[in-house]
Amino acid sequence: MKKVNVGIIGAGRIGQLHADNMLRSNVINLKAIADIHIDHLKGTHFEQQISLISTDPKEILEDPSIDAVFICSSTDTHVHFIKAAAKAGKHIFCEKPISFNIEETREALKAVQEAGVKLQVGFNRRFDQHFRKVYETVREGTVGNPHIIKITSRDPQPPHEEYIKRSGGMFMDMTIHDFDMIRYLSGKEVVEVSVKAANLVDPIFEKYNDVDTAITTLTFEDGSLGVIDNSRQAMYGYDQRIEVFGDLGVAFAENERYTNVQIATKDSILLDHPKFFFLDRYKAAFMSEIQEFANAIIENKAVSCSGEDGYKAELIALAAKVSVKEKRSVSLSELEKEDVRV
Amino acid sequence: MKKVNVGIIGAGRIGQLHADNMLRSNVINLKAIADIHIDHLKGTHFEQQISLISTDPKEILEDPSIDAVFICSSTDTHVHFIKAAAKAGKHIFCEKPISFNIEETREALKAVQEAGVKLQVGFNRRFDQHFRKVYETVREGTVGNPHIIKITSRDPQPPHEEYIKRSGGMFMDMTIHDFDMIRYLSGKEVVEVSVKAANLVDPIFEKYNDVDTAITTLTFEDGSLGVIDNSRQAMYGYDQRIEVFGDLGVAFAENERYTNVQIATKDSILLDHPKFFFLDRYKAAFMSEIQEFANAIIENKAVSCSGEDGYKAELIALAAKVSVKEKRSVSLSELEKEDVRV
Amino acid sequence: MKKVNVGIIGAGRIGQLHADNMLRSNVINLKAIADIHIDHLKGTHFEQQISLISTDPKEILEDPSIDAVFICSSTDTHVHFIKAAAKAGKHIFCEKPISFNIEETREALKAVQEAGVKLQVGFNRRFDQHFRKVYETVREGTVGNPHIIKITSRDPQPPHEEYIKRSGGMFMDMTIHDFDMIRYLSGKEVVEVSVKAANLVDPIFEKYNDVDTAITTLTFEDGSLGVIDNSRQAMYGYDQRIEVFGDLGVAFAENERYTNVQIATKDSILLDHPKFFFLDRYKAAFMSEIQEFANAIIENKAVSCSGEDGYKAELIALAAKVSVKEKRSVSLSELEKEDVRV
Amino acid sequence: MKKVNVGIIGAGRIGQLHADNMLRSNVINLKAIADIHIDHLKGTHFEQQISLISTDPKEILEDPSIDAVFICSSTDTHVHFIKAAAKAGKHIFCEKPISFNIEETREALKAVQEAGVKLQVGFNRRFDQHFRKVYETVREGTVGNPHIIKITSRDPQPPHEEYIKRSGGMFMDMTIHDFDMIRYLSGKEVVEVSVKAANLVDPIFEKYNDVDTAITTLTFEDGSLGVIDNSRQAMYGYDQRIEVFGDLGVAFAENERYTNVQIATKDSILLDHPKFFFLDRYKAAFMSEIQEFANAIIENKAVSCSGEDGYKAELIALAAKVSVKEKRSVSLSELEKEDVRV
Repeated sequence: MKKVNVGIIGAGRIGQLHADNMLRSNVINLKAIADIHIDHLKGTHFEQQISLISTDPKEILEDPSIDAVFICSSTDTHVHFIKAAAKAGKHIFCEKPISFNIEETREALKAVQEAGVKLQVGFNRRFDQHFRKVYETVREGTVGNPHIIKITSRDPQPPHEEYIKRSGGMFMDMTIHDFDMIRYLSGKEVVEVSVKAANLVDPIFEKYNDVDTAITTLTFEDGSLGVIDNSRQAMYGYDQRIEVFGDLGVAFAENERYTNVQIATKDSILLDHPKFFFLDRYKAAFMSEIQEFANAIIENKAVSCSGEDGYKAELIALAAKVSVKEKRSVSLSELEKEDVRV
Repeated sequence: MKKVNVGIIGAGRIGQLHADNMLRSNVINLKAIADIHIDHLKGTHFEQQISLISTDPKEILEDPSIDAVFICSSTDTHVHFIKAAAKAGKHIFCEKPISFNIEETREALKAVQEAGVKLQVGFNRRFDQHFRKVYETVREGTVGNPHIIKITSRDPQPPHEEYIKRSGGMFMDMTIHDFDMIRYLSGKEVVEVSVKAANLVDPIFEKYNDVDTAITTLTFEDGSLGVIDNSRQAMYGYDQRIEVFGDLGVAFAENERYTNVQIATKDSILLDHPKFFFLDRYKAAFMSEIQEFANAIIENKAVSCSGEDGYKAELIALAAKVSVKEKRSVSLSELEKEDVRV
Repeated sequence: MKKVNVGIIGAGRIGQLHADNMLRSNVINLKAIADIHIDHLKGTHFEQQISLISTDPKEILEDPSIDAVFICSSTDTHVHFIKAAAKAGKHIFCEKPISFNIEETREALKAVQEAGVKLQVGFNRRFDQHFRKVYETVREGTVGNPHIIKITSRDPQPPHEEYIKRSGGMFMDMTIHDFDMIRYLSGKEVVEVSVKAANLVDPIFEKYNDVDTAITTLTFEDGSLGVIDNSRQAMYGYDQRIEVFGDLGVAFAENERYTNVQIATKDSILLDHPKFFFLDRYKAAFMSEIQEFANAIIENKAVSCSGEDGYKAELIALAAKVSVKEKRSVSLSELEKEDVRV
Repeated sequence: MKKVNVGIIGAGRIGQLHADNMLRSNVINLKAIADIHIDHLKGTHFEQQISLISTDPKEILEDPSIDAVFICSSTDTHVHFIKAAAKAGKHIFCEKPISFNIEETREALKAVQEAGVKLQVGFNRRFDQHFRKVYETVREGTVGNPHIIKITSRDPQPPHEEYIKRSGGMFMDMTIHDFDMIRYLSGKEVVEVSVKAANLVDPIFEKYNDVDTAITTLTFEDGSLGVIDNSRQAMYGYDQRIEVFGDLGVAFAENERYTNVQIATKDSILLDHPKFFFLDRYKAAFMSEIQEFANAIIENKAVSCSGEDGYKAELIALAAKVSVKEKRSVSLSELEKEDVRV
């Protein structure tokens, strides 16, 4: 079987995660990884198993044997590398969000389209087995036409200040996954966003003009509704639940626990905790997303999460930010007419 | 032990339910029931077991041996009977809502206050064992300060047209229970209401200027948030779940199923359905609410759900209706300045 | 609707439980209660609501208006009262076990048969909603032919020494319920019993030549199997689970918890405890069993748990005792040939 | 980090499974695989990634660079290869059972002991996350001293006739895993075995003097009890549950389902099925067992499942077979005195 030759730009946490998965993949050949900082890779298994470790991304972009580029660098460099990779005729996997600027995202997508390469955006949750099962249940019509889609998405603990500062804010950094998921599950476009947000977890968010708790209500094109509740801190673990309620029924995905063990004593009846860390919770999903991307290239079919999907999720995140700022419901159509830095 | 002597005004479904519970109560003596229509009681066990069945409520109000009156008649008569009962010095249990008119509700409460009698409003869910356990967990501080309170409240099937016509609309008829529950659980006052609603279940609701599906976001006085999702039709049964998420943890109450049986075959792994009918689901709660009311009288202590609570829930329901109509967030403080027929 | 007039012989815990349920029943008239000791009933609601409270059971047996007698006295008096009630032409409800002596039980059943009255034995668990659902699932053929039936039956705490002394031993007192349940669920007769038992909970059981922990394996007439595990002490609550595994699938009944609440914090994910006390756990079942008994009389149909069922369960309990004593598998056919005091 | 150099003898299903896991392991170098039949490996990724694929196991045994040998060939060759590998000074991982003959197993263990090499037996379930959690809970004392250990272990479907013929019978092939698990969980030795078995699933088992359904009761050295129920066919999937009940509480491990999704409609409330195939169910456990084995070599510490463990499980399986044949309880001490071909 043919394997896809891949180079990774960005050797941080997520870049290394993808690299490890690629080394275990039967459809991907990890040939190169590039980052400004590569010292931390020295003496690791990456050095032994990857032919090229470089400080210059060009070495990847100019290598004719490389089929696809994974962009895992900081968000502010995504658009630049997407354009460069598209120009070099490479297929592209880009971490979310594509950018913090809708207009720049649009330009990046345009470059991809012109180059005729594939672009997959890193919304890993689409590849989670539980959520995929709900998605398929909805597609099969089992729950009928969705009336209300609910997502509970709460991080186990707030990120560090450095991260918060450059995160683009909760909606662009965290809820963007939920915006993508709600579009994915519904199969409908969001037309309006209304947010009630608060700063309840840590004042550090306020310092950066950010929030840490929110209820976001979404109106779909057919009048049906979605609602997302977010918190930056759930003490009991990473809380990731979805529910699609339609005119024929409902499908839920519950949290994934470490084990299915129950312990009962005089004092307590205990279940195991939900997985705490997103890399544990979505471990299989991170593997599946690169496998599906590689297969889309090998079989020349559509990717499971397109640049268009990335753009739409950003647009909803932008609307959410405007909704918080201006304390009103925001139509997506308003935003597409203007160019706003998110 | 002393028993409370009770008369019921209104012999419809809910009046009969209370009557049956009173006949099994060890703290209540059901002495009389009055309604314009009493023919349907003939030949029933009520005729055998209740001394007085009358078409004239005055017979109850003027009977000096009666300690308390249950007002189970149609909503448009509640205020009249509250005033009359208060004047007669009877303690009062009134079904929800007190009225469809905030000003009239205030007047009724004033009459009660002046008479120095007790008034309990029929928010039966406060007495449900599952919800009470969540309430107690919150009070004990186990989940910390509530940040997000979520209620899923979906009826199994829409009411009849005749009912819809006089229901006061979904918010005043159905969501009002959730408005009370969210106040009860949080121990905080709601200051703002924002609704996205739709007509997705049946066009009959639209005919009466009503909705059948809604996401209601509530802002509490301390900036924390609540969200309620409603539908008039959940095909799988009566869906009644609550969740209080705080800075230390979360408490959920799941639906109550008919049985704890699981059946696994080649084709399916089946659980039993959630209870379908509200009288089944809240069977124990309906009993508890009248027991607690009687005990409040016997021990001369505060009722578990006061007239003030009834008024506040109506005010939120009114705000929800305005929010839908004017497509905006509505402050409760706006409404307290004016007198609007809901 | 006709009501069944009932007299209760025995005013201990279980007699009073039945009395309370009868006072709330729409098909039973509780007319009398008799016991050697009746002082504890003075000043209670029983005195107000029951016409006759007597120290002489004859007053019940000789009252022509009484249709049925509930025998709730100590086990050693059951056979005597069954014979007397049968002779008096009364229908009989008798608590389990009928007696500790198989031959005497047979004689009692003979008297009942000759008198042509109905006899129901108090195996309350047959009337539990969860177990009834499993029973119906098996009857409908959903799980196919039962291959393995499993019962977990563990008491929350050991009884007092006085009780142990006269209990007839764990198999005759506690496991007898499981023996009946396994016959009920399977619809097959047990032919062989093999027990491994131990004294692990409290040495007090050993003092009375009794055990407190056991695994009992049962062989049914068609070669299929049953297994019951018992303990006299489950610290987490009354553990009552059943499972029927057949060639098409499996049906389980899980424990009934106080509430469906889950509480999640940093330290623990907690469920509520299983109900601790058998009167709570089987509250509804105790009501159902007397209702079904009364309906069997009113509609002149077979009772749901016959004298034959009581006899068979005793026979299995006896076989279990022999199995422990003689450390071998015991055929029920062996025992029917002899007369053994259990 | 040092890696363990490994050669595999036996390239069937389980040999290939281990090979694939080794190729993804960071502590194992898979250097060679040998089998009489190697044609099926041609053109596979094994050919590309394993240096030596041979029909001669000697090539592995005589290769001085190889640290450890995995014996994945048919059971009748295990003892031969264990002795040869021990003589060659290789550490050994051997699939279960070591042999069908207790005496030969003892000889193999003697050879291992004399050679001073490590031997791990392939009881993969010890490495399952859920069962490991129960094990740890028991070790921490949370449930107190185990009184009753229960294992439900039902295969999703019977094996093929060819497999049955050479399986050693249900107890030696299938229940042997449960015998090991019950020793592992209890930390106690089994002293007596009592089985009730039946042929209910398929007459094919009877043809080979085998059974397909069984309840096995085990008595531990301290008088506490264990019980295992087995079936060769559970239509709803692979049923693998364990429960340790002690004087302080109970710990359960429930089945692992494909997903945590629940689907509720008018007709049914559905959960996902338990995983059907043992390679899916124990996927992570198969990886963990080879990792722990390699780490035991690297860090020169005891293996997690020793030859002694393999021997003890075989002895219990043998006792179970005798129990079925002779219809009686069998003491393990009886068997250690004689040499019986199982």
